[in-house]
Amino acid sequence: MTAKNTTALLQRLRAAMKNNQYVCEKLNAYIIPSGDAHHSEYIAPCDMRRAFISGFTGSAGTAIVTENHAAMWTDGRYFLQADQQMDRNWTLMKMGMSKTLSQEDWLVKVLPEGARVGVDPFLMSIEEWKRLSSKLESSGHKLVAADQNLIDLVWDDRPEPPSNPLMVLSTKYTGCPWQDKVRQARDQMKEKGAAVLVVTALDEVAWLFNLRGSDIDFNPVFFSYALIGKEYVKLFIDESKLDNAVRAHLMLDADKNTEDYMKVEIHPYDDIIAQLKVACQEVGKEKIWLSDRGSAALCNVVPDNMRLTQQSPLCLNKAKKNDTEIKCMRRAHVKDAVALCEYFAWLEKEVPKGELNEVTAADRLEQFRREQEDFVSLSFDTISGVGSNGAIIHYRPSKETAKTLTTQELYLCDSGAQYRDGTTDVTRTVHFGTPSKHEKECFTRVLKGHIGLSSAVFPNGIKGHQLDTLARQHLWDVGLEYLHGTGHGVGAFLNVHEGPCGISARLSLTESTLEAGMIVTDEPGYYEDGAFGIRIENVVLVKATETKFNFKNKGFLTFEPLTLAPIQTKLLEPSMLTEKEVSWLDDYHTTCREVVGKELELQGRPEALQWLLRNTQTLG
Amino acid sequence: MTAKNTTALLQRLRAAMKNNQYVCEKLNAYIIPSGDAHHSEYIAPCDMRRAFISGFTGSAGTAIVTENHAAMWTDGRYFLQADQQMDRNWTLMKMGMSKTLSQEDWLVKVLPEGARVGVDPFLMSIEEWKRLSSKLESSGHKLVAADQNLIDLVWDDRPEPPSNPLMVLSTKYTGCPWQDKVRQARDQMKEKGAAVLVVTALDEVAWLFNLRGSDIDFNPVFFSYALIGKEYVKLFIDESKLDNAVRAHLMLDADKNTEDYMKVEIHPYDDIIAQLKVACQEVGKEKIWLSDRGSAALCNVVPDNMRLTQQSPLCLNKAKKNDTEIKCMRRAHVKDAVALCEYFAWLEKEVPKGELNEVTAADRLEQFRREQEDFVSLSFDTISGVGSNGAIIHYRPSKETAKTLTTQELYLCDSGAQYRDGTTDVTRTVHFGTPSKHEKECFTRVLKGHIGLSSAVFPNGIKGHQLDTLARQHLWDVGLEYLHGTGHGVGAFLNVHEGPCGISARLSLTESTLEAGMIVTDEPGYYEDGAFGIRIENVVLVKATETKFNFKNKGFLTFEPLTLAPIQTKLLEPSMLTEKEVSWLDDYHTTCREVVGKELELQGRPEALQWLLRNTQTLG
Repeated sequence: MTAKNTTALLQRLRAAMKNNQYVCEKLNAYIIPSGDAHHSEYIAPCDMRRAFISGFTGSAGTAIVTENHAAMWTDGRYFLQADQQMDRNWTLMKMGMSKTLSQEDWLVKVLPEGARVGVDPFLMSIEEWKRLSSKLESSGHKLVAADQNLIDLVWDDRPEPPSNPLMVLSTKYTGCPWQDKVRQARDQMKEKGAAVLVVTALDEVAWLFNLRGSDIDFNPVFFSYALIGKEYVKLFIDESKLDNAVRAHLMLDADKNTEDYMKVEIHPYDDIIAQLKVACQEVGKEKIWLSDRGSAALCNVVPDNMRLTQQSPLCLNKAKKNDTEIKCMRRAHVKDAVALCEYFAWLEKEVPKGELNEVTAADRLEQFRREQEDFVSLSFDTISGVGSNGAIIHYRPSKETAKTLTTQELYLCDSGAQYRDGTTDVTRTVHFGTPSKHEKECFTRVLKGHIGLSSAVFPNGIKGHQLDTLARQHLWDVGLEYLHGTGHGVGAFLNVHEGPCGISARLSLTESTLEAGMIVTDEPGYYEDGAFGIRIENVVLVKATETKFNFKNKGFLTFEPLTLAPIQTKLLEPSMLTEKEVSWLDDYHTTCREVVGKELELQGRPEALQWLLRNTQTLG
Repeated sequence: MTAKNTTALLQRLRAAMKNNQYVCEKLNAYIIPSGDAHHSEYIAPCDMRRAFISGFTGSAGTAIVTENHAAMWTDGRYFLQADQQMDRNWTLMKMGMSKTLSQEDWLVKVLPEGARVGVDPFLMSIEEWKRLSSKLESSGHKLVAADQNLIDLVWDDRPEPPSNPLMVLSTKYTGCPWQDKVRQARDQMKEKGAAVLVVTALDEVAWLFNLRGSDIDFNPVFFSYALIGKEYVKLFIDESKLDNAVRAHLMLDADKNTEDYMKVEIHPYDDIIAQLKVACQEVGKEKIWLSDRGSAALCNVVPDNMRLTQQSPLCLNKAKKNDTEIKCMRRAHVKDAVALCEYFAWLEKEVPKGELNEVTAADRLEQFRREQEDFVSLSFDTISGVGSNGAIIHYRPSKETAKTLTTQELYLCDSGAQYRDGTTDVTRTVHFGTPSKHEKECFTRVLKGHIGLSSAVFPNGIKGHQLDTLARQHLWDVGLEYLHGTGHGVGAFLNVHEGPCGISARLSLTESTLEAGMIVTDEPGYYEDGAFGIRIENVVLVKATETKFNFKNKGFLTFEPLTLAPIQTKLLEPSMLTEKEVSWLDDYHTTCREVVGKELELQGRPEALQWLLRNTQTLG
């Protein structure tokens, strides 16, 4: 990777920051968040403003440009990548390290007195806006909503916003008609005294209407907003996207007397602000429910005393998968495992020839997935890292960086797909030759953590952060650690990262408790800079479990792996495993063999089947 | 325990809430927090307003009285006790249970439109004030500072505020002259651009000046405030408390040319508001540093743009014990262990006679402690609980409730003392006959959690909440749980509960990272209502440890037990322990035997020594 030269761009941005044509008064600092107007994690090319201005393309990061400084905050996953992609104009602010200043502390340190800090209000959540605004004010500065996006001004060849067609997802996959989802939301609105719910997250709109799109790579969503009122549902979207199937699904042209009829109004995407103003005039004394992740631009339309700013109820409704969704997710993971078995069997033959590199290998994996029924796309850019590249936590191989797969180095492969029946995300780390003793110790400790989390039993009512340490403790025992969370929520044919639960030590006041039906990942790792990376990741289902006792009738939960791909036992130091760990691994491999083996037979894939049988032999 | 009849009191309080003589406009609700003006956890009798109005005497709880309701929020430690102590006027709001409304949600539910909610602003922290105020405002209500405390109005025989003499603590115990502590604080103020630090927590004032008092039972503190300016130190205290030793220690009458001279001004306690106003006029553009736990009454004196509302730097300075303090704490714990050995040896002889009850036993334990050098007082009311009383988490035995100690039931004893050289807090659970299989399973699981936490290795930079689950997981495995935190900070001859660190799953944004020199408890438990309670508690020191690797030079930490009292092995099911656990326990008992045994010999206590030798035999 070579760094992007940002000198000229920063000059133009700084000129715009003091140009009266664009800002009513000079800005001393300009914040460039990662997100789009919907707080999406993955974004369309037209929204990649932070990457454009800095060169840093990681999925998380916030840039702040002042007259004399340009600084980038990102987390441990991206320290190496950001360092490589940014030129000397930029200072990397390593989040999570004790000496790193927060954005507000840094601003207070570098800003002149009474400074104005600008941001596009569509790109900052209301919570972040309030927090930052009050911090800046208490130091005599001001956070300013800059209506004209200054990056777009200096971005000469900015891509067009996408507008791809929609796909209807039948109840065979969703298990729940969209009308029922609207009714459920209305019940929840009633409980909170809210007359209107503003739906801003793209995956929530897609989930609500049982529609999928392809406006953002890897994420089957479409640019849109929705307003749910007591009597109406308004969908804000480019109407040209709606073909007859979608129109029929939404009953746009149906008679009011049709069974389960519910009126949906279609409005242009940009009309959300105007319609929200109308809603404010209509609701009387009731509240308008805005997501705490909704943009400051939307929230500021609603008068303070009318706002109910809280996590959208759809966020939790969506996270708790119903039986149909769980069944479909299982099916998607079996197909995904078939592709993985094919891939690893193929790698075993091909790697020793020395002609495969990280990119050509990943391409072949994609091909194997494409062969599976209901395949739609990958769910994220495949991370395919050999040796030292595996230590770059969210590494994406390119022609320039691609190393050759060999029998000498570890190979880390984190990949996933979108199928019509579900979303997958799996990481396996393998060695095609003889791993070193050190690699085996590290791998075994990562696996002990993976098993510790996966087999945890815990009461209803606890949050994911309470389980995070179970995945780290065996690394800590010998002074090792990994600088990323342990798990994230996974959508059902939706975003591969979704809230409101996860497994991470980071404090989040909006983290919800773990509940049966939620689906998260379990992915501890260990990364040795310049040497190798290890990660073992399964998608797991939260489910009720029987325990000997049941304290205060709380009910207890555990995890069931949905991912069914063998874990390479060659990389283990078996003497470091407890009996319980060995038995977990043996049970897991037995399930893989039975469930995936059957599917491989059905699909007529004998080589992959043989590989599966060889790689699911029990230790115990 | 019988419930207090509060009918007449609540009538008088409700009358006061609408009496123009006391409130300028009628209050629809009145909040009665637990605390005093210093946010102390333990409070003087004159400040026990919440207990007075409700009858509930637990250490944590908030009462809210409206025209038609009286509700009490408290946590799992106190569900049973609160239920027993409150009459039918009161509704118990069980915090931590999923269906329990928060105070603000409850208020919003029960209040009429546009209601006024009153509180004594000295008794509510500014953070709580801001949070509640904004929540109430967003629902059209108002939080009101009621200058006249309405409970004091209806409390006919309210005790006088205490004013006991002070004690100087020499550097032999503190390891650091108060002048150096002031200098350290001034350096920290400079870093944050603060010209004045307002010290409101009583233990911070005591720690700062190396003084101790006895205004609050069990807590060696005295009613006071302090202001640290760049050039002055102001102590707000009843001057009659200061004898010549204290005056000399504070250099009140010393010549300015005396070595290490630093000027301290003494002001009356009540002058804090007036002097804070003076400070506001003097500081110019710099900030006034107010603790986030400081009262709304103090904070509201300081104009918004002058406030730096953050955890007091003294809170963390105090929590990180220096080498002298650690040495003294070790010494205090050895003496405490001597008293415990005497006690348990004595119990072994006396219990079978059937004449000891929870109160007479606890009194004897206090006597054993009093025999130790530098004993000052207990550090909290001894929890001495037999069988079902052991299940009441913060049970305090009284004549009415005291059960007899027998050879049939478990006995839980949680106790501690203040010595001039340190504060102790220890819980042991023992059986004087033959424990049941179920009791043994539960005890063993509690011990596995205790050991899991105590032997944890973890990197610098993590917070206590990340370790909490290590103490619970073995209970969760079989569907058991305990409804309290796992550990709290402990002062050095100061409060037995102190911040800013602890081991608890509860999210706290002010929780600081664990650092070497901090001292916390490790106290998992298990409580079976109506049957028995188990808790195993040690005070442990956070200290650096050598690890095989040292990831990114983070440095790794672990715990060292300071408490050195045998854990009853009769209550263990050894087959449930891992080798590592057995070896931890054997090492622990060997240390007890060596260190405490030597002291028992020195003190000439042969019976206790024999008991110690019998009770520290290794399992392995």
